[in-house]
Amino acid sequence: MLSKNKIKLIQSLNKKKGREEYGLFLAEGTKMVEEALRSSFHIKTIIGTSDFLHQHPEAQTKAVEIIEADSQAIQKASLLQNPQDSLALITLPTFTNTGINCKKDLVLALDFIQDPGNLGTILRIADWFGIHTIICSENTVDAYNPKVVQASMGAIFRVNIHYTKLDDYLSASVKNQIPVYGTFLNGKNIYNENLTPNGILALGNEGNGISDSVSQHITQKLVIPDFSSLNNKPESLNVAIAAAICCSEFRRR
Amino acid sequence: MLSKNKIKLIQSLNKKKGREEYGLFLAEGTKMVEEALRSSFHIKTIIGTSDFLHQHPEAQTKAVEIIEADSQAIQKASLLQNPQDSLALITLPTFTNTGINCKKDLVLALDFIQDPGNLGTILRIADWFGIHTIICSENTVDAYNPKVVQASMGAIFRVNIHYTKLDDYLSASVKNQIPVYGTFLNGKNIYNENLTPNGILALGNEGNGISDSVSQHITQKLVIPDFSSLNNKPESLNVAIAAAICCSEFRRR
Repeated sequence: MLSKNKIKLIQSLNKKKGREEYGLFLAEGTKMVEEALRSSFHIKTIIGTSDFLHQHPEAQTKAVEIIEADSQAIQKASLLQNPQDSLALITLPTFTNTGINCKKDLVLALDFIQDPGNLGTILRIADWFGIHTIICSENTVDAYNPKVVQASMGAIFRVNIHYTKLDDYLSASVKNQIPVYGTFLNGKNIYNENLTPNGILALGNEGNGISDSVSQHITQKLVIPDFSSLNNKPESLNVAIAAAICCSEFRRR
Repeated sequence: MLSKNKIKLIQSLNKKKGREEYGLFLAEGTKMVEEALRSSFHIKTIIGTSDFLHQHPEAQTKAVEIIEADSQAIQKASLLQNPQDSLALITLPTFTNTGINCKKDLVLALDFIQDPGNLGTILRIADWFGIHTIICSENTVDAYNPKVVQASMGAIFRVNIHYTKLDDYLSASVKNQIPVYGTFLNGKNIYNENLTPNGILALGNEGNGISDSVSQHITQKLVIPDFSSLNNKPESLNVAIAAAICCSEFRRR
């Protein structure tokens, strides 16, 4: 049975304050709970219908606590518009910066990404292109926001996410001879540039692009050229779309 | 002043039935109304605050009808969560198939795209990459749905959109020696394939990909390879992300 207190706890995970208070985040629906079960994350609680629990016996060994609930109760607890048959309460991971190796790997740096859907989509793109680390500015939306988690389609369990003073991080990286890429309107055509298999690719805010304090550390300014021949120029690309095209360019070489 | 009847009319444009009844679609906010004013579309009505109308004198000559309204009235009429200072009622365009030239141009074919945000984003990508025509299956979400219009960020005014029996259209195209591309899990690596500057690129449904009836007409099956080295394979890419990467590959050559 799903107690009123448990429902209240689940709903408090919609806010960062609640997630920090309980040290938990929420993943909803079969797809996401299955991803959580396959991951190395610590699962505190799985709540599911009897059908779901029957079909996922591995939940019994993976989760500390299992709660069977009917669809109606899950609907009450759910933060989704279309509640599903299961949800999982997962311990917030703690990553340390020490494992990051920008001399060997390609890493994304997110500068004030605000929209949860964009961050979730960027995680999914990183996952696809084998990018295992994302560094976020402290004002980037929290990756354990339920909207980010759901939009990541499971990538949240496979990508290491760090929040830090991006300015300082990039400054130290540049001193360490690491190439730092970023897209700018006046950058060089990405299709013709020499791109290294390692380094940092910075992506900027939805409305304003890369901030001045971050842009001073960019060593290679790139642009995705537009192919429109119209007088009425197209809108800039959405940041997740730009991320996809840049990652594709880095990886195909 | 904004009459009750006008508010009712505006809100009816949220549904396809309403759009077809009045022959109109809705664009909201400064950015979108400015795009409409710069376009060759026929604008029936512009509703704006006195500030907006003062700053956009061209509205007087471009629109058949101008209505000044305060923010409160606009809020009542608006379909947005965060209503802005203006909206435009625009005559639904009528495109004919006759101008499409897949022997010369690259054209997108959308097979049952359901999500308005995805369609809007695909329009924006097409606009960026100079793709002027999109052919949609009849079960693809209506492009003049307000959510598509807003997500297109103005591309709706620069891309020609056709709804047709996609199966028949592709069948005729193949007979006409036009290359028809599409992405499949078992396709050939897009980075290594020879891509023509013309032809049709088919994109499939969010959950199920390209349908069987459409896939039989695909002459070149492509795949965007994943670069994940993990045992736990990533989720497939979102259709708009796949569209962006494919369009980038076609255009950079």
